Amino acid sequence: MPESIEKQDLQLQLQAVHEALDSGAANHARQLLAGLDSSEVAHLLESMPGKPRKVLWELLSEDFQGDVLQYLGDEVRQSFLSRMQPDEVAAVIEGLETDDIADILQELPDQVFQQVLLSMDEQNRQRLQTVLSFPEDTAGGLMNTDTITVRPDVTLEVVLRYLRLRGELPEATDSLFVVDSSDRFVGVLPLANVLTRHQDDLVRSAMRDDIEAIPADTDAQEVATLFERRDLISAAVIDDEDRLLGRITIDDVVDVIRDEAEHSLLSSAGLDEDEDTFAPVGSSARRRALWLGVNLLTALMASAVIKIFEPTIQAVAGLAVLMPIIASMGGIAGSQTLTLVVRGMALGRIGDSNARWMLGKEMAVGALNGLLWALVVGGVAAFWYDDYALGGVMAMAMLINLSIAAAAGVLLPIAMEKANIDPALAGSMALTTVTDVVGFFSFLGLATLLLI
Amino acid sequence: MPESIEKQDLQLQLQAVHEALDSGAANHARQLLAGLDSSEVAHLLESMPGKPRKVLWELLSEDFQGDVLQYLGDEVRQSFLSRMQPDEVAAVIEGLETDDIADILQELPDQVFQQVLLSMDEQNRQRLQTVLSFPEDTAGGLMNTDTITVRPDVTLEVVLRYLRLRGELPEATDSLFVVDSSDRFVGVLPLANVLTRHQDDLVRSAMRDDIEAIPADTDAQEVATLFERRDLISAAVIDDEDRLLGRITIDDVVDVIRDEAEHSLLSSAGLDEDEDTFAPVGSSARRRALWLGVNLLTALMASAVIKIFEPTIQAVAGLAVLMPIIASMGGIAGSQTLTLVVRGMALGRIGDSNARWMLGKEMAVGALNGLLWALVVGGVAAFWYDDYALGGVMAMAMLINLSIAAAAGVLLPIAMEKANIDPALAGSMALTTVTDVVGFFSFLGLATLLLI
Repeated sequence: MPESIEKQDLQLQLQAVHEALDSGAANHARQLLAGLDSSEVAHLLESMPGKPRKVLWELLSEDFQGDVLQYLGDEVRQSFLSRMQPDEVAAVIEGLETDDIADILQELPDQVFQQVLLSMDEQNRQRLQTVLSFPEDTAGGLMNTDTITVRPDVTLEVVLRYLRLRGELPEATDSLFVVDSSDRFVGVLPLANVLTRHQDDLVRSAMRDDIEAIPADTDAQEVATLFERRDLISAAVIDDEDRLLGRITIDDVVDVIRDEAEHSLLSSAGLDEDEDTFAPVGSSARRRALWLGVNLLTALMASAVIKIFEPTIQAVAGLAVLMPIIASMGGIAGSQTLTLVVRGMALGRIGDSNARWMLGKEMAVGALNGLLWALVVGGVAAFWYDDYALGGVMAMAMLINLSIAAAAGVLLPIAMEKANIDPALAGSMALTTVTDVVGFFSFLGLATLLLI
Repeated sequence: MPESIEKQDLQLQLQAVHEALDSGAANHARQLLAGLDSSEVAHLLESMPGKPRKVLWELLSEDFQGDVLQYLGDEVRQSFLSRMQPDEVAAVIEGLETDDIADILQELPDQVFQQVLLSMDEQNRQRLQTVLSFPEDTAGGLMNTDTITVRPDVTLEVVLRYLRLRGELPEATDSLFVVDSSDRFVGVLPLANVLTRHQDDLVRSAMRDDIEAIPADTDAQEVATLFERRDLISAAVIDDEDRLLGRITIDDVVDVIRDEAEHSLLSSAGLDEDEDTFAPVGSSARRRALWLGVNLLTALMASAVIKIFEPTIQAVAGLAVLMPIIASMGGIAGSQTLTLVVRGMALGRIGDSNARWMLGKEMAVGALNGLLWALVVGGVAAFWYDDYALGGVMAMAMLINLSIAAAAGVLLPIAMEKANIDPALAGSMALTTVTDVVGFFSFLGLATLLLI
């Protein structure tokens, strides 16, 4: 498969670079790097532990370091920048796009930040300050200021002449923006229209006014939704008086989508999406300890429930054998519902208008599967222990726990969102707490009532 | 926050449409829909249960149905298409892009598929057959055939005249492709270069030959990586003799990235990424039952381990209270490692060259956290039961389980990938099986040896 070939390529490159570094053949390593582009070098750096990573970084020229920086994750980037002087940082990031510079600067200590800002020329500083005046996760924070603007009342011939005079266009330029004399956004002039329309046509008649500009305070997620819905390549960003501030390009949007996906995936395990896979043992252990501590508290709650029924277990030790099954099935069924609901909420599909329908549906699914697995599990228990009463208790507890699991899978994330808690982060642990507590309580409680 | 406003908008639209449908006001519902574009209507349809969804669908005109179809998830789309006649399907999908038509056709029964194909005109059928000859998840399956080609030895003036004659360009056209007389790919001519270079320049001198074309059998994932690394908007797709077959555009790549992210997220809960959130209770229950059944088997394995030690539990019922803590902490620690490793492998960061390093690191993290939580948990147990020996057993079992969890978190996904099992799907369940079995066995085994 081509994919594995590509992955193998990286692994072979890694191996070669590691060997070169291990044998101290810096020149050979430099040669290996010369054949790669900056995103590939970033990938190599992300794939190595701290020591060789540092050596490799030092082998790169200043310009190349800047190019590589924009492709690195926050944590790895931070580790390089924190060892550099302000003027070095300024020199390294000089050639980058405004939004990437803004991203990088925001991670630096305030003092370094100010010094880097001072060492830039006036125009770049102003551009940067515009971008920096918006939060990182808004349209304003995502934008670049490299827009090309034209007036509505000139002809396409004039536009063409202007573009030829200008030479190079910024990356991912699929359209020019049309602004009036006070810099207010009027419309979008696709390059395709410049090429295919009559040269005598006015910009006004060749432009499209059906593509809206994005207000600078729009949330990054919503920007991504807009780009996906309208299949945009680039879009204008405006202030609250419709003045053009900059533009967002699809590559920045792809980053937003990637980051969001990483967040959903990693936060359910209590991990940060910027976490460096190859971070040192100490810092990794410290960060993960916190999540284990939270989990311990929830596990102690479940244990406290079991403790109530210690005499029952003493009387019927088989209960201890069977009780993890109830808890485990509840956890799995609940997390299926939770995963669907959290995703549905993130996509805007589940909200006030259909939350009740969703609850009804999931509880019906939970009850159906509860019935099915109650029969199976009750049968297994009755057979294993040759005890029909025990089988009955097992079946009832299973039905109860799968129903509660379904309800919790819908209600917990909805309640969390209302309370401004990220359900992708806290949902899964809260859910298993519910299914453990309910599972143990119903199973051991019923056993105490009916078997003792 | 703007994001929640957008989500609220959808919820308000949903509410309005639901009310219109409930009161039988079809005309009013039609009016509501007229103000929306096709991606928004698709979003509404995805956000409703089967009955109102069907009513809403019937309100759409044939052309609009086609537009909406391309934005729907596989399962929802399938539910509409399966109720249509072949000629209706053909009429509805007529105006779509080739790759979208190919996607839709592949979901249809073979007979319908053939009939739809026959009802198309010759040119469209041929284009479609080119795309259909490649698997859906390769560059060939993703591509469109709407390329615009130019020869290397004409001037830009000729290109400009040709484009004006042609009129409209296909969506997301940021460049033309340069081919020789036998249709072999030679290079890429960015629209920006057509605009900014001298009209007398030859295409050959204005084109870029540093942007590679993508072989048709390249895996979709790798196509996405290429687009991201090189910040591409579109790319040429070629056969194994370098002949131009079509082009891939960034919007298709964004879909690949989204699908992959959804897959990672949903498959760990045993869910399919195409699953309809609002599917009927019966089919949802049936699909999820399978995953619960697999889980039951693993839970029974854990129970079988506990059963070995039933006499021990009879003697010391407190063991039953404490044992879920060991299993739970192992599961959480292991899933942190597993999540990082599965993601690292998907990104190509973890492979043969550094798997051993990763194992060492994670085992060190596991041992460190094992020591920390062994002390805490051992202390809690000793205090709770006023029994130092029990505390010691608890601490030892915790240390063992967190170390094994770390090793399993690294080794399981690596072994699964070698065996061609998707670690995103099976990893999490396999891991908790290991941590449950090891946790119960080490805790109860040590207790049997040391406490009885």
